Amino acid sequence: MSRKVKPRLARGLRDLLPDELIPRQRMIDTIRRVYELYGFSPISTPAIEYRDVLFGSEAGEEAAGSIFHVHGPDDEELGLRFDLTVPLARVVAQYRDLGRPFRRYQVADVWRADKPGRGRFREFMQVDMDSVGAVSEVADTEIMAAMCDTLDGLDVGEYRVRYSSRGILNSLLRFAGIDEERGPDVFRVLDKLEKIGFDKVRKELTTGYVDESGDPISGVGVGDDQVDRIARFLEVRSDERQSVLDQLSDLFAGVEGADEEIDALARIHRHLAALGYGDDKVVVDLSIARGLAYYTGPVFEAGLVEAPQYGSVFSGGRYDGLVERFLGEKVPATGASIGVDRLLAALVDLGRVDERRSTAQVLVTVMDKSLMDDYLELAFELRRAGVPTDLYVGKPGGVGRQLKYADRSGVPIALLFGGNEKEAGVVTLKDLDLGRLKSQEIEERSEWIEERPGQVEVPRGELVAQVREMIRRQERPAGDGAP
Amino acid sequence: MSRKVKPRLARGLRDLLPDELIPRQRMIDTIRRVYELYGFSPISTPAIEYRDVLFGSEAGEEAAGSIFHVHGPDDEELGLRFDLTVPLARVVAQYRDLGRPFRRYQVADVWRADKPGRGRFREFMQVDMDSVGAVSEVADTEIMAAMCDTLDGLDVGEYRVRYSSRGILNSLLRFAGIDEERGPDVFRVLDKLEKIGFDKVRKELTTGYVDESGDPISGVGVGDDQVDRIARFLEVRSDERQSVLDQLSDLFAGVEGADEEIDALARIHRHLAALGYGDDKVVVDLSIARGLAYYTGPVFEAGLVEAPQYGSVFSGGRYDGLVERFLGEKVPATGASIGVDRLLAALVDLGRVDERRSTAQVLVTVMDKSLMDDYLELAFELRRAGVPTDLYVGKPGGVGRQLKYADRSGVPIALLFGGNEKEAGVVTLKDLDLGRLKSQEIEERSEWIEERPGQVEVPRGELVAQVREMIRRQERPAGDGAP
Repeated sequence: MSRKVKPRLARGLRDLLPDELIPRQRMIDTIRRVYELYGFSPISTPAIEYRDVLFGSEAGEEAAGSIFHVHGPDDEELGLRFDLTVPLARVVAQYRDLGRPFRRYQVADVWRADKPGRGRFREFMQVDMDSVGAVSEVADTEIMAAMCDTLDGLDVGEYRVRYSSRGILNSLLRFAGIDEERGPDVFRVLDKLEKIGFDKVRKELTTGYVDESGDPISGVGVGDDQVDRIARFLEVRSDERQSVLDQLSDLFAGVEGADEEIDALARIHRHLAALGYGDDKVVVDLSIARGLAYYTGPVFEAGLVEAPQYGSVFSGGRYDGLVERFLGEKVPATGASIGVDRLLAALVDLGRVDERRSTAQVLVTVMDKSLMDDYLELAFELRRAGVPTDLYVGKPGGVGRQLKYADRSGVPIALLFGGNEKEAGVVTLKDLDLGRLKSQEIEERSEWIEERPGQVEVPRGELVAQVREMIRRQERPAGDGAP
Repeated sequence: MSRKVKPRLARGLRDLLPDELIPRQRMIDTIRRVYELYGFSPISTPAIEYRDVLFGSEAGEEAAGSIFHVHGPDDEELGLRFDLTVPLARVVAQYRDLGRPFRRYQVADVWRADKPGRGRFREFMQVDMDSVGAVSEVADTEIMAAMCDTLDGLDVGEYRVRYSSRGILNSLLRFAGIDEERGPDVFRVLDKLEKIGFDKVRKELTTGYVDESGDPISGVGVGDDQVDRIARFLEVRSDERQSVLDQLSDLFAGVEGADEEIDALARIHRHLAALGYGDDKVVVDLSIARGLAYYTGPVFEAGLVEAPQYGSVFSGGRYDGLVERFLGEKVPATGASIGVDRLLAALVDLGRVDERRSTAQVLVTVMDKSLMDDYLELAFELRRAGVPTDLYVGKPGGVGRQLKYADRSGVPIALLFGGNEKEAGVVTLKDLDLGRLKSQEIEERSEWIEERPGQVEVPRGELVAQVREMIRRQERPAGDGAP
C-alpha cells in the first residue's frame, strides 16, 4: 500500500465545520432574501479568470503576487478571482444585451495571496449587490436601505450605516485651498484618522514624521493653515443627519460646487427619512475617506456599535469606472459588499450566534435492533413533519454511546423507544441541552429547570407536537439572551 | 490609458446569468432542505488542496493532468479539488474528534481539466451527502429515501432510483465461474451494456473485436458459457423489487454467500416499503456496474423516466476506503452526489423549469421625477410585504423605455403611477407576461386572456393584495403546464 498522506490544509486556508457553517449559511440565506426583495438577481461566474481580465493589460509584479495563479490544460495565464467586482465588470462588458440597470448579486468565495493572520484567510466569502447603469441617487438610497434591512435581518444589535461622498471631499480640497491633484494623497492620509489620531494625520499631511519603529513617514506637503481648515471640517459631527448638513452648509458657504454636493447628501437623507430610516440607523460621517481613489459619488460603510473593533463590515459606494478596462467607457454603478466572515466573527464575539452544531433537532436512538422498522417510522414521521431528524446508524452500542454521539454532534433531543414503550404506546424524549445545563449546576436557573423536565414520556400519537414544544422551549432562552 | 482587455472566459468555463442561476439556486435550496431534514449538517472546505491530498502519494502524470494546478505565495504543490469526497476524507482524517457517524453535506464547485463539450464544463457544482462511520443498512436505505424526497421536492416528474450491490456482482462471478481477480474487468465491460448493447459486451468479455473506427477492443478472455450465465443474470428484470429478488434467489440457488447478499437487498426493500417508497420510485436493477472498483456495498443511481438520455443524475453507494489514504484503516461510509447542472439541463429540456429571469416580481416605473418619494414608498411597501420589487433607477426616459427594461430583465408586473393616479388615489398595474402572450396572438388562449386583464387600475390601499393576486394568476399556468 502507498505511503500514507498527512491530512492537512495549506497555509491561510480553513475548513468550516457545522458549528461555523450552520450560522454562516443562515446569514447568507438572510442576506439573499433581503437582496432579492430589492430586485437584485443572482449571477455566478467561474473562480478562474484570465489574468489580464483580473488586472488589466498593464499589471505589474505586485498585482501578480497578490493572487493565486492557476495552470490548466491549455497553458494560459489564469488566476483565481480576488473580488466579485471585476467578474461583474467582465460580465457587463461581455454580454452587451443585458438590460440596464442590471441589478445583480453574487455570493461567492474569493482568493488572495495575503499574509494570513487571526481571522484573515486566503479564501473568504463575499456577498455583493450592485446596480449597474443606475444614474439616480435613488439607487444609492436603496443600497443603504438594503444594508439596514440586511443588518436588521441578521439581528446584529445596534449598528450605524455612515455615508458621505467623493464630491464632499473634493469640496473640502477647494475649501482648504489644496490642489485637486493632491486629493488622493490627502484622502489616503485622512483614511488613517481613526487608526492613528489627528496629531499624526496633521504631521503626515504636512512635513512627515518618524514613527515608533523608526521608519520615516513622508509628508504630503500641505500647509498648516490648510490642515487647520481640514480640522474644522472634521469637527463637523453630529448624531443627526440634518445637523451635519446644516453645519456643513455654513462651513462651505461660498465654496464653488459645494452646495450641489451637500444637496445630493440631503436628498439621500430625505429619501431615507421618508422610508423610516432615521438617525438611529444612518448617519452622515464626513470622516469617511476610504476607497476614494475608486468611488466617484456617495460612499457608505456600516459597523456594529457593540463591536467597533471589527470596523466596517459592509461597505460600498458609487463608481463609474467599472467597465473602463474592457470598453473604454464609463458606466454609472453603485453597490455594496458584505464581509460575511468578519461579521460572523463579530457576532460570535458578541454571543449573538446560536451555536447549534447540527442541523438535526432529534436523534432517534436504536435500543433494540428488532424494532428497526419502528425507528425508521419514528424518524420519517418527524422528517415529514418538517423536523430535521437523525437516526443512529453507527456501530452497535448501548444508549449511553448514542447519547454521547448526540451530545458530540450537537443534537438537542434524543428519542428513546424500546419494547416497553412500544407496548405502552409511548415514546421517551430526552432534552439533552437541559442535561448539559444540569451538569453545570447553575442554581439560579433551578426554577427554569423545573419547568423544563429533562426526560418525558409522551403518547406515541403526540410525538410531533411534543417535539415541537420541546424545540420551542429550547429556543426561548437563546432568543431572550437569558432564561 | 491602458490597452483595452477583451472580456472573455477561458475554455470550458461559463457564467450563469439570472435565467439559469435562479432555477439552479432554487434547486439547491430544495436539496439542502431535504438533506437537513435527514440530519445532514453542512461543511465547507477550501477549493485549494495539496496535490498529494487530492491523489495520494503515488499519483502519476495522468492524475496530475486531470486537474487545475494552483501556485500560491508559498510555492507548494496545490490543486483545485475535483470532487467533494476527497475533501470529506481529509476532514474525517484530520479532525479525529468529530463524532461518528458524521453526517455531512456539502454544496460546492469542483474543477476538472476535462475536454469540454456540450453541457460539460470544467467547473461544475456537486451537492453530496454522506454518512461516515455508518455501518447499518438503514443508512443506505436513508440515502435512497433522501434521493427520492429530493427528486420529489425538485418536481422532476417520474424518476427511478435503481439499486444493486457490489456483493451481488461478486456472487455473479461465482455463479458464472469467473475468477474474482477478473471482476473489475468484467464489471468495466458490463457498465457499457446500455451504451453498446449485449452483443458487443459478449464480444468484449470473450475474444474482443474491432470497432467501427477500426480500433481493436481487446477481450477479457471469459468463456462463452460463462457469458451465457451472465446473460441469464442480466435477464433477471422486473418492475417489482420482490420479483427481482425472487428470480435472483432461484438463479443463485447454491452459490456460496449469495443468500446473504440477496438478503441485504431484501432488507433494504422491506425498509423502503415500510416507509412508503414503492416500486414506482425504487427498483432493483442488477445491471448497475458503475463505480464498482470503488463501492463496496449497495450502489444506487437515479434517472428521469422522461429524459433517459441524461443518464444518471444522482448516484452513490457504500464505500469503506474513504480515509485509507490518510489513516491506513477502513471506515464504513455511504452517500450520494447529485449532479445539479446535468439535472437542471434535463429539467430545462423537459420544460419543467420556470424561466424567470429576474427575482423581482414588480417594477415600479418612474413617470414623474417630482413623485420620487411616492415611488420609493410604493416600492418599499411591496418589499416590506415580501414582494421582491425593482424600482427604475436607470437613465431618464419614457415609460416605454422602462417597460422594455422590465421585459428584458424578466420582471412580470409593472406599476405605473403619475399625477392623475395620485389625485385619484389609485395605481395602475400592468401584467407584462400577458402582454407578451397577447403579442404572440395565441387564439386558443383567448378565454384565459379575458380572465386576465393586462392592465388594471386598483385603489392605492389595495396595492399589495392586488399584486399578490396578479402573481398568483401568473403562476397558475406555469404550475398546470398549460392554462
